[in-house]
Formats: sequence, C-alpha cells, structure tokens
Amino acid sequence: MKDTDMNGAESLVHTLLASGVEVCFTNPGTSEMHFVAALDHIPGMRSVLALQEGVASGAADGYYRMAGKPASTLLHLGPGLANGLSNLHNAKKAGSGVVNIVGEHASTHIELDAPLTSDIEGIARPVSHWVHTSHAADTVGKDAAAAVQAAMVAPGQIATLILPSDTAWNPGGVAHDALETPAPVPFEEANLARAAEMLDGPESLLMMGGGALTEENLEIAGRIAAQTGCKLISEWSNARLERGAGRVEIGRVPYPIDIALKVLEPYKRIVLVGARAPIGFFAYPGKPAILTREGAEILTLATAGADLGGALDALSQATGSTDTPPAHVVEPALPERPTGPIDLDGLAAVIARAIPEDGIIVDESVTTGRAFFPVTKGAPKHSWLNNCGGSIGYGMPVAIGAAVACPDRKVLGLIGDGSAMYTVQALWTMAREDLDITILIFANRSYRILRGELTNVGVGNPGPRAIDMLSLDRPDLNWVQMAQSMGVEACQVATCEELEAAMETGLSTRSPYLIQVDL
Amino acid sequence: MKDTDMNGAESLVHTLLASGVEVCFTNPGTSEMHFVAALDHIPGMRSVLALQEGVASGAADGYYRMAGKPASTLLHLGPGLANGLSNLHNAKKAGSGVVNIVGEHASTHIELDAPLTSDIEGIARPVSHWVHTSHAADTVGKDAAAAVQAAMVAPGQIATLILPSDTAWNPGGVAHDALETPAPVPFEEANLARAAEMLDGPESLLMMGGGALTEENLEIAGRIAAQTGCKLISEWSNARLERGAGRVEIGRVPYPIDIALKVLEPYKRIVLVGARAPIGFFAYPGKPAILTREGAEILTLATAGADLGGALDALSQATGSTDTPPAHVVEPALPERPTGPIDLDGLAAVIARAIPEDGIIVDESVTTGRAFFPVTKGAPKHSWLNNCGGSIGYGMPVAIGAAVACPDRKVLGLIGDGSAMYTVQALWTMAREDLDITILIFANRSYRILRGELTNVGVGNPGPRAIDMLSLDRPDLNWVQMAQSMGVEACQVATCEELEAAMETGLSTRSPYLIQVDL
Repeated sequence: MKDTDMNGAESLVHTLLASGVEVCFTNPGTSEMHFVAALDHIPGMRSVLALQEGVASGAADGYYRMAGKPASTLLHLGPGLANGLSNLHNAKKAGSGVVNIVGEHASTHIELDAPLTSDIEGIARPVSHWVHTSHAADTVGKDAAAAVQAAMVAPGQIATLILPSDTAWNPGGVAHDALETPAPVPFEEANLARAAEMLDGPESLLMMGGGALTEENLEIAGRIAAQTGCKLISEWSNARLERGAGRVEIGRVPYPIDIALKVLEPYKRIVLVGARAPIGFFAYPGKPAILTREGAEILTLATAGADLGGALDALSQATGSTDTPPAHVVEPALPERPTGPIDLDGLAAVIARAIPEDGIIVDESVTTGRAFFPVTKGAPKHSWLNNCGGSIGYGMPVAIGAAVACPDRKVLGLIGDGSAMYTVQALWTMAREDLDITILIFANRSYRILRGELTNVGVGNPGPRAIDMLSLDRPDLNWVQMAQSMGVEACQVATCEELEAAMETGLSTRSPYLIQVDL
Repeated sequence: MKDTDMNGAESLVHTLLASGVEVCFTNPGTSEMHFVAALDHIPGMRSVLALQEGVASGAADGYYRMAGKPASTLLHLGPGLANGLSNLHNAKKAGSGVVNIVGEHASTHIELDAPLTSDIEGIARPVSHWVHTSHAADTVGKDAAAAVQAAMVAPGQIATLILPSDTAWNPGGVAHDALETPAPVPFEEANLARAAEMLDGPESLLMMGGGALTEENLEIAGRIAAQTGCKLISEWSNARLERGAGRVEIGRVPYPIDIALKVLEPYKRIVLVGARAPIGFFAYPGKPAILTREGAEILTLATAGADLGGALDALSQATGSTDTPPAHVVEPALPERPTGPIDLDGLAAVIARAIPEDGIIVDESVTTGRAFFPVTKGAPKHSWLNNCGGSIGYGMPVAIGAAVACPDRKVLGLIGDGSAMYTVQALWTMAREDLDITILIFANRSYRILRGELTNVGVGNPGPRAIDMLSLDRPDLNWVQMAQSMGVEACQVATCEELEAAMETGLSTRSPYLIQVDL
C-alpha cells in the first residue's frame, strides 16, 4: 500500500481505519494538527471532542466494553496524556483495549526542553501494556497496526503510540493492513479435572470475572451450579456483567470488608474463571487482606486473558452438566412502586422499575448504590458496568463511550456527586454528540464512603476539620445549573414520585438528561 | 523530639509545620484517612479541599509563586497523583516548590494488586525532582523534612513523598525539625567579565527570567541598560513578573514564531540571568527552533537555580552602573476609557484601567491576551503570573494558591474558556474558601490558538471536521450558570461599559466573582 503522497498522519488514519478503529476521542493540540487535518479529509473516523482528556480516556474504556474493539484517543503531548491517566488506569484494570495516540514535539525540538517537553514514555508506562515512539513517517503505519494489535490482546490492553510531529507532517507515510487479532491464551487444561472435582456442594464456589460474564457463559455456569450444587460469584467490580430477567444471576463479592469476609467464609474450594482470588479493596489495621477462609483451596482454571468460553465449556463437560437446566435463572420481577421522600430502598426500587430492555447501566454510585443489585435483578435484560480501577470520575466518560458504541441502547448513569465532579466536563460532550444518556446524580453532598473509611481505619470521633475535608456542602453543588451550563437538560427531585416522572422524561428522550437526586 | 505516642501521620503533620509548610491542598481517600485525622487534631495547617487533584496541584504552584515557600498536597494513591500531574508539570517548569504527599496501600497490600494499586513512583518521576517512599512509621518525619528541603532547592522543586498507609497508622512516629534551606548555587563568576563586555549598545540583550524578575532585580537591570545601552527582555512565560508604574519595564519574547524571530533578530550578544536562550514553543515545518540570529553570542551568567540577585549586583558593578539611574522606568499611564462592543483593544484597556495596586494577575488568556502587556504596563504596581509549562488549566488553580498565599491582595484571573474548562472544579474551592478572586472568562468559543497553529504547521483550508475539533460552540458554555452551580457569583458582558461595571463589582467584593466576556 505504498503511497508516496501520503504523510505520516494520513498513514496513521488509514491504518487505524483498516484495523477497525472507527472512533477517536480527542483533545488535540499544536503537535497533533496534522492528525486533525488527516481526520478532516479522510472519511470514516468519528472524532469526539472532550474538554479534558480524562473524558476522552474514560470514553475509550466504555467504548471497548460495549463494542468489543478499541477506540483511539488523540492526546496532546505528556500533559494531555497525564490528564487522561487515571481513567486509563481504570481501563487497564477493566481489561479494556485502548489505542492512545500521543503527539510529541518534532524530533529535533525535544532536546531543546521547551515548556511542554516531558518524558511522555515515562508518563505512559505505568498505565500502558505497550509503549512505542515512532521515529520516522514511514514507520507510523506499521507502528499503528502494532498498537491496535497490542490493544486487542485479551481481555484488552492499553497501547500508547507516541508520534513526534515530524513523523506526522513528513511525506513517505505507508498505510498498513490490519495485523492478526491475537488469540486468547489457552485455559489451564491441567487444572480441569481438579476444578471439576472441587465444585461439589454448597462449600464450593465458581468465581467468574471479565469475559466470563456474558449471557452465554453465565448460562453455562448456571448449568454447572445446578449439577454440582456450587455457588456462583463475581468480583466486586465487573467491566460488564449481563444480567436481568431470563439470565443466570451472579452476585458480587461485597465491598465492605466485614461483610465480604462473612459472605466468603463458607467456601472451602474456589475455582477461578477470568477472576482473581478475592482480596480487600484496601488494607485496614488488624483485618485480613485475603478475604477467603484460611486453608481454602483456590484453583485458577482460566486467567482474564484466557479462552473463558472454552474453559466453561470444558468445565461443563467435566462436571457432566451440559444438559442440565441452569440454576439461578432470574424470573421477571419488579419491586413495589415506592412513594414519598427518597431513601436508598426507594431509590433502588424506582431505578429497578425504570431500567429499559437492553439498557446499559454505568454504575459509579459508590455508597448510594450498594443496595441496587438485589432489587434490580429482575428488571429487563441489561448490561451493568462497574469501575474496576477505583479511581473516581470514571462514570460519565464511560457512559459516553458506551453510548457511542451502542447508539440503539439507552445508557443510564448512576453517579455519586463527588465522582461526577471529577470529570464534569463530560456533560458537554454528551450534549455536543446528542448522546442517549440519562444521568442520575446522587447528591449526598459528601464523600460518604470516606466517612465510613475513617472509622474503618480506626479513627474514632472525627472533628470538624476532618469532616470538612470529606464534605461537598459549603457550597452545595447545583447540578441542574451545572448541566444546563453545558447544554444538558436537567431537573432536581426529592421524592420517589418526582424521580419516577423525571426518569420517564429522561428515558423517553434520545438526548442526554440529568437528574439531581437529593439524598 | 521522640514521642512514642505519635503515629506516622502525626509525625508528618508536626514535621511539615516545623518546616514552615502551613497549607495543604487536598483530595484525600481511604489510604490518607490517618493524615486527615492528624490534620484534624493538630492545629496549624490550613487544609483546602479540591474536587479534582489538578486544582490542588495548581494551587500549590500559585502558592509557591506568591509565598516563596512550598505548600503540601495530599493525594490519593497513583490515580490521585495522576490527576494532579499536568499542573505539577506546569509547576516544575515554573520553578515552583511543591511537597506532594501521596498515600499508598499498606506495605503488605501492594503485592495483592488491588484495583487502586499502581506504580506510584513511576507516575511521580516524570514531574518530580525528588521521589521517595517511606517504609516505616519512624522514618516518616525524617523523610518529610527531606521532602520540604528538596522542594526548597532554588528556584523550587517538585518533591513527592509516598506514604504506605501502615506508615501512617503505625505508632513510633518521630517528628523532625526543619532541615536547612538549601542555598542557591553560585552564578558563573568566570563569565562575569565577558558578560559585562557583551552588554554594549542596542545590539546587546540582557535576558532575564525566574527570580531575576523581582522589583529590586529589575531596577538593577534598568541601571545596567541605562549605562550600557543594552536591551532587556524576559521569557514568554514568567512564573512571576513584578511590573507597573514606577518599576523597570521588561518585555517578553513573543509566542508567534515569526514575530519572535523578528524581535530577536537585532541581537548579536545575549547575556542570560535566570533565563534560558530563546527557543520556539513548538517546532514548525521549515522554521527554525532557535529564535536568536545565527552566530549570536549567548552567555549564561546565572542559571535559574543560581543567586540571581548576586549575579545582577556583580554585573552592575562590572558595567559601572551602580549609580546610574535606571532606564525604562514606567510612568503611571492608563489608556482612554473604551466604549462599545468588546474587541481585543477595548478589553485590554478596561483591564488596564481596573488593575488594582498590588493586584496579582494570573494570565491564561492565550490568544486573547497577547495585546494585554503593552497596554497594562502603566497600571499600578502588580504581579503578573504566566503558565510556564504550557499545559492548559493552570489559571484558576494558580489563582486559588495566590489568593491563599496573599489574602490581602486582589487576584485577577484572565482565563480563556478552553483553558478554564480543564480545571473548572476550581470555582467551587474559590467559593468554599471565599477567596478574593475575580475571574474573567474570555468566551471566544474555540481553541482559537489552534486555528492559527493549523496554519502554522502548514495545513491550509481546514474542513468542517477539523474546525469542529477546535470549536467550543455546539453547545455554547454558559459560564454564569457554571459559576453559580458551584456557588460563585457571576455575570456576562458584551460591551466595554458592561465589563467596566462588572469589574467594579468584582473588585469591590472580597469574594470570588466571575465575568463571562463574550468575544
């Protein structure tokens, strides 16, 4: 595909398109202007502008979770990448594939140490599986194809390609064909027989994560559970869990450490498929970090990057459950219609009753949402997305990416006020792209989770200065004005009836809509 | 100061206070709860909450520029640090000293690779001069004293101290006395005689930066200029420049490369005091990156970390100008009162007429502000702060830090709309702390600078997709609603008369006030 009229930037865009990358979440700068020009005149790439790079990188995470293939980001030098870093951390932990394109000064300019010069590879490395700097226009195409391939390594990886601006503007670009999509690694076949033996009765647990949580894989797990009597559980945070009426239910390891210890206490034998052995989110003085009972036998049948469907098929055969009807299939069921001032139960009930068929739930509800799971299980089929990296500000950007990936599905964001503020600029992108997203902001006016954590780490009776550092009042945030300032329609509710009506409004439009839920 | 009842967190707070660190810009998380508790019960540290860490790190930058000593940040693990990274990049380039305190998982928890686990040292290193992880409670005090000392190395450095949570909660903390403040390195005395010879007539230039730009040092430079006939100039971006009526005027190397080349073309001999030789902000195809004329003799008398006052004193003596009245002393002068719709000249004039005595101007006006400098030179004495690292989103956070450092001085922020959106959460902290800041948002509804850069890098006739990636309309941002949503009073103006009235309102209150200036 040699084309001597092509510059490096054009070879990048052609290669990304050939490799199936169709979306670019971006905030470009001077060093990326040739890429902007190439995106302008080469059709096929949807460019989505973000007003801060954390929105762009989070959107790429959400896109991968729902599209199953990477988007690109286009970021301005080290600082632009740095702004996107915490949501890349989250994407990395979620097993999402992302192709970061980061502009760099022209090769001759780097040594001059200009104001924007920084160690871009150094900034990229902690959140990237793959980092590469191109050194000439004629290798940009090849390097871009390798970046996409690296991002597609199962379950998904962060690939960061750094392009000095002369590699963009120089002629001699060569577009490259897509490289082969990497196959997942094999599961641990040597562990299969023992895994099948271990799953025997209610003291055994099949713990699943990542790509094991599709509808099809959960059905296999349901058969295994029916046949063996084992229990099923997933990690606390799942990149994408398929759930709702008609699907096999799977719980989550609870976040609060004492409850998690209690939930996991019965299990003497645990088989892992795409999940890791349960550990605490944080360490606490005097409490264990390993959440399983002492002496529990834990066996990995398949790591996150393995062939999880193959592992479950084999486990189903080894346990003789291929023809067993699955256990734990959820019946359609909705809670009673709640009324009156909003409390956590009422909130969960209104949400459960509103979840639309094929809805995508982006959950960054933190403390508010801990009771949502049981109540919503009988809602129509939906996808549930959690934050796997623990860095707040993931929710609204991930909602953007999910909505771009799935324009025919409603996205419902359940976001704590403290989390939403981290990447509040996301609202503007939702408005600009007219995305089909309804956002609930849970306005408890505090980092509520940290009030509990203060106690958990052993700090009794916090004084006013400590409480002030965990509070979002003084002044209160007005989310209706905030949303409207960025072009998103919004309302504020204090009762279950008002919330129900507001969700009807939000879910019946195909534009973004924000509801401030006063708690 | 051994106190066996003290935990590591308490030893940190005592040590920081003993070392003169009195302010903590923070967004803490679980792993920092013991520090929150220590800040709660040990009096003396002002804790300022930010809703995103970029606000905290930028505020620490502004604080150092005006207080001349470091503040601390308190950040939550790798992702919290990551969010603060781009403004730490700016602080590093400005020569600001910052003491970052970053929580880490308990030592025993790190190997478990929990969701929030990351390579914190790796994230810190590209923006830090000094990085250290404490390994036990009894070294936290000593490490904290070393961190403050590292931050105080002239002109100021980024020191990042990483504290695993068990080093915070374990007993055995030992508060440490302040370590000696490092002396600046000597200037290049061997170059003094040649420097004095070089400064001779209008083809010679004394270029100054950093700590050379105080009122006193500028007066010395003015004497040298009067005696030798040399010209004076500063870098495009100065961390803090003292200017206004009664002070010696110094220009800046222009940002647009063609104008910079023209301005610097006459100079055959350049002496550097606290500045670096002028280079382009970016490289452009076919244009030089070195902005000085070919064959120009460039001599460094003092680097940014050197004794700049000593260097200028010595240069003054060597040029025989100690008793010469300074040249370029600015007469008080204000432009005519402008009227009618706001254009760039009218805008500059209104601002010049409004600058209060001892005002602090935080300039992130990007394209809008390029004409502000000549018009404002005759305003009452003021400090002018620029972005030295080029990463946008520096302005509102730096305004916070400046206002905290100088509660008796008015802070005036001149901020482009695209830049302001990067760290828009800063408005809430301004409201919460009731800071004496007036913010002008220049609403040109685009990344205007990039329209020019597209041309500069050789891209002619950009199409609609390119222009869309550089535009902030669709939807327009409503800055009045935005500010009010975070508790900041605001108004919108379109004429010079309206702007004048709005600035009177803003400058006469001692609370934050935002003015959306429609351009």
